[in-house]
Amino acid sequence: MEFVKNAVGRVVPTEINGKPQIPFKGVGKHIPEGRKHGPSIPTCANYPEDGNKLVKDLKEALIKAGLRDGMIISTHHHFRNGDLVANQIFAIAKELGVKDLVWFPSASFPCHEPIIEYLKDGTIHHIEGSMNGPLGRFTSEGNMKGIGILRSHGGRYQAVQDGEVQIDIAVIAAGCADPFGNANGLYGQSATGLLGFALADSQYAEKVIVVTDNLQEFPCIPWQIHGNYVDYVVQMDKIGIPEKILSGTTRITKSPDRLYLAELTAKFCQAAGLIKNGFSFQTGAGGTSLAVSYYFDQIMRKEGIKARFARGGSNKYMVKMLEDGLVDFILDGQTFDLDGVRSMRDNPNHVWTSPFTSYNYHSKGNFASMVDIVILGATEVDVNFNGNVVTHSDGYLLHGIGGWQNALFGKTVILPIPLFRDRIPVIVDEVTTLVGPGELIDVIVTERGIAINPRRTDLIEATKNSGLPIVDIHYLKEEAEKICGKPQKPEFTDKVVAAIKWVDGTVIDVVRQIKK
Amino acid sequence: MEFVKNAVGRVVPTEINGKPQIPFKGVGKHIPEGRKHGPSIPTCANYPEDGNKLVKDLKEALIKAGLRDGMIISTHHHFRNGDLVANQIFAIAKELGVKDLVWFPSASFPCHEPIIEYLKDGTIHHIEGSMNGPLGRFTSEGNMKGIGILRSHGGRYQAVQDGEVQIDIAVIAAGCADPFGNANGLYGQSATGLLGFALADSQYAEKVIVVTDNLQEFPCIPWQIHGNYVDYVVQMDKIGIPEKILSGTTRITKSPDRLYLAELTAKFCQAAGLIKNGFSFQTGAGGTSLAVSYYFDQIMRKEGIKARFARGGSNKYMVKMLEDGLVDFILDGQTFDLDGVRSMRDNPNHVWTSPFTSYNYHSKGNFASMVDIVILGATEVDVNFNGNVVTHSDGYLLHGIGGWQNALFGKTVILPIPLFRDRIPVIVDEVTTLVGPGELIDVIVTERGIAINPRRTDLIEATKNSGLPIVDIHYLKEEAEKICGKPQKPEFTDKVVAAIKWVDGTVIDVVRQIKK
Repeated sequence: MEFVKNAVGRVVPTEINGKPQIPFKGVGKHIPEGRKHGPSIPTCANYPEDGNKLVKDLKEALIKAGLRDGMIISTHHHFRNGDLVANQIFAIAKELGVKDLVWFPSASFPCHEPIIEYLKDGTIHHIEGSMNGPLGRFTSEGNMKGIGILRSHGGRYQAVQDGEVQIDIAVIAAGCADPFGNANGLYGQSATGLLGFALADSQYAEKVIVVTDNLQEFPCIPWQIHGNYVDYVVQMDKIGIPEKILSGTTRITKSPDRLYLAELTAKFCQAAGLIKNGFSFQTGAGGTSLAVSYYFDQIMRKEGIKARFARGGSNKYMVKMLEDGLVDFILDGQTFDLDGVRSMRDNPNHVWTSPFTSYNYHSKGNFASMVDIVILGATEVDVNFNGNVVTHSDGYLLHGIGGWQNALFGKTVILPIPLFRDRIPVIVDEVTTLVGPGELIDVIVTERGIAINPRRTDLIEATKNSGLPIVDIHYLKEEAEKICGKPQKPEFTDKVVAAIKWVDGTVIDVVRQIKK
Repeated sequence: MEFVKNAVGRVVPTEINGKPQIPFKGVGKHIPEGRKHGPSIPTCANYPEDGNKLVKDLKEALIKAGLRDGMIISTHHHFRNGDLVANQIFAIAKELGVKDLVWFPSASFPCHEPIIEYLKDGTIHHIEGSMNGPLGRFTSEGNMKGIGILRSHGGRYQAVQDGEVQIDIAVIAAGCADPFGNANGLYGQSATGLLGFALADSQYAEKVIVVTDNLQEFPCIPWQIHGNYVDYVVQMDKIGIPEKILSGTTRITKSPDRLYLAELTAKFCQAAGLIKNGFSFQTGAGGTSLAVSYYFDQIMRKEGIKARFARGGSNKYMVKMLEDGLVDFILDGQTFDLDGVRSMRDNPNHVWTSPFTSYNYHSKGNFASMVDIVILGATEVDVNFNGNVVTHSDGYLLHGIGGWQNALFGKTVILPIPLFRDRIPVIVDEVTTLVGPGELIDVIVTERGIAINPRRTDLIEATKNSGLPIVDIHYLKEEAEKICGKPQKPEFTDKVVAAIKWVDGTVIDVVRQIKK
């Protein structure tokens, strides 16, 4: 394996799992060549005239789809930790004696821990997708046969579109579908709101299987997934665990520390003049993020300000802002609670988006760069404003990238983060894994002060007389170390266990095996 | 030019405009190989971060898009005979001295007569798309430099998807758009309801220009056309003539002959047991077709029958059926009046479709084959039930194919047609141009009787005691000739002026130059 140092100084391999790689060249520096991937041309002559693509069960569908050694099998993560389908695919593969599959989920969750068995027995060669929790730990310990590849939501679309990942079989679980394969996530016991994470899969996979526990008569409207891309439809009793897909009700954090961070963030935005008529924001759905929305809401009501749009993950607070006329539109990538689903179903101004519209960097623009205020989290940030979201300071790979890298393209990116977690500093000299370059991260809000990226002279100027605790990022790092002590660096072997892709398909960093 | 006889006995060239062609092999017989077309991979790095793609005018957009000799330029026909954009493109091309363009409209109309000038002066080499009226006449007389190619709506999507036609610049006029290029046809003075005919163009063209007279702030919702596919946006005062785009109000024919045909058609469907709960139908928007809808409506109300869906072109009668609960859904490809637009805008069960969902034969099934009753027209039908919709019996190319070939895949296809028009028989020995193979046409309804395709023994059986005037198609032909005399065959030179593609991209017939 040959290595080179990329544009952010990280040493990355030039080949991964036998495929040549391009090292990260800098933001906006890699200009792609070539053409989008073209899957095989199908013909209606090979599909039932009556539109009925139902087959007996998932096993039959996988066999008909030609499941065999070495294939790339994709799933989506709209079911989050309540997914009942993905594990079944690999149980069937194992039963059929199929080996060396690549699992290409849009994300994995703790419910996918059984996948470890298939990684151990050779059914699955490696995973390309986030490895939240147990699968990440397994990978960090050097147990996966191949090298894992992590991509952002937009990067996943880009990789599929560009043919870097050529999906053989996509399995799309849907809350609602018809026998032709039209599907959406708006109805049924396993409603997910939308199915945008499976869009690329439907468009570009060679074979597409739709699985549902809520079969409707044709036409299933709206067709978030077009049946015209679908080969087989499978009906099952239950494809997801509703209470693990959506929360019945989302709740704002009650932690005083987090509420303080959120309030400080909102105050900063107000002081910097970012909260103004027609603005747009993306806050995410974590506890702190929800609280930021709440403070935005308060400011907007008080000042009579309306936003043009908010980016989802949606939740009941955001829905209320839409319904009260505080935002004109929600442009939503995933619904986090039942109010989100209801609103998306019934309100034409609650719009379902996809990684294509929102995040695909190999597109003629996307929505991410048009968002005025973007609130994100991080596991670590370093004094150069570089961010990490995939590994902890102990070196373990425990999270996916999600839309984080993509959302960094927003006009002002703010990370409200605690100075330390479990007595481990969050602001560090150098991030363990570099997932987002510092030039895209504008503001760090902590309980000990706000650090503004020196590149953002406009923000520094706008807030200099605000009375807010604006400090140097080095000060924050020192404060953290005063309390926690200088953190011990994790120790790694030389073995690369996972690679982190940038939004343009280049390799920005790698994760190495933990030295025990 | 080499010629071969294809599967329906028509002599067709193996090469057209320098490109090799596949002769028609029979319905469902041509199995495509290869991959879908992949346009060049773009990158956000080359597009404005603020999403503002507005340029000064259409000329600047065309220049920025790299307009040059030999390019393929596409437009759509949602504006019908009220299009104010297409002619401008070629006026600009002429001004810039660009030559030998291919115009690839989804259809052309009499308002495009000025294009003849550009065909004459070499700005345009040939047209691929329907040539209704003057352009057809010009072509039939052998005046076009290249050979015209006519495709169905679905065939056009197929050709673009498969890379048979690689669009260089698509110009998409839209009733509503934002500076990012998101667009729909639902709002504004030039509303068209939808923009489905431009979908393939947006997805596959190298450069996409959106033109609007109704610029909205981002986001323009719904995004029938995704701005992520769009390069430039142009604002104009007026892109269409409203009264020529949509009729203010659609009217059912008052002709007693046509009403009789329509009533007979509806009675036949009823007698054959085709009008039953959960059925589906497509009637089109011509005078007779509207009347068929009207009679369906009457039967359904009387018998308490509900349809699952109706396929548009929509109009106020169909909208009323939707609103009164006689149909669950309208799956609509184009709106023909203001009620159609209103309903599509406001009623989630009035669904916009596209040639991709409805008609693309190189897909994993499409909706066309799922429709129970399809009512279509024809300029000629022969005793083998072959149909012609593009030429008249005088040999002139005067019409496009529209969705006609695609809709032939419906379960029962019925053509209510007069026995003769202007004293020229419509039922003939052999159609002038074979556009649809007789095996797909089930029933011919005329004022002198109904002929059922002998292949449809089920329909013959079901209606044998109906009291309806079921006759042999030869009888109809003879009746026509009794009244009009044996029609004179048009005389042609050997020169091929246009080719007719089947839904799978093969050549089913050609049109030859009229001998004066």
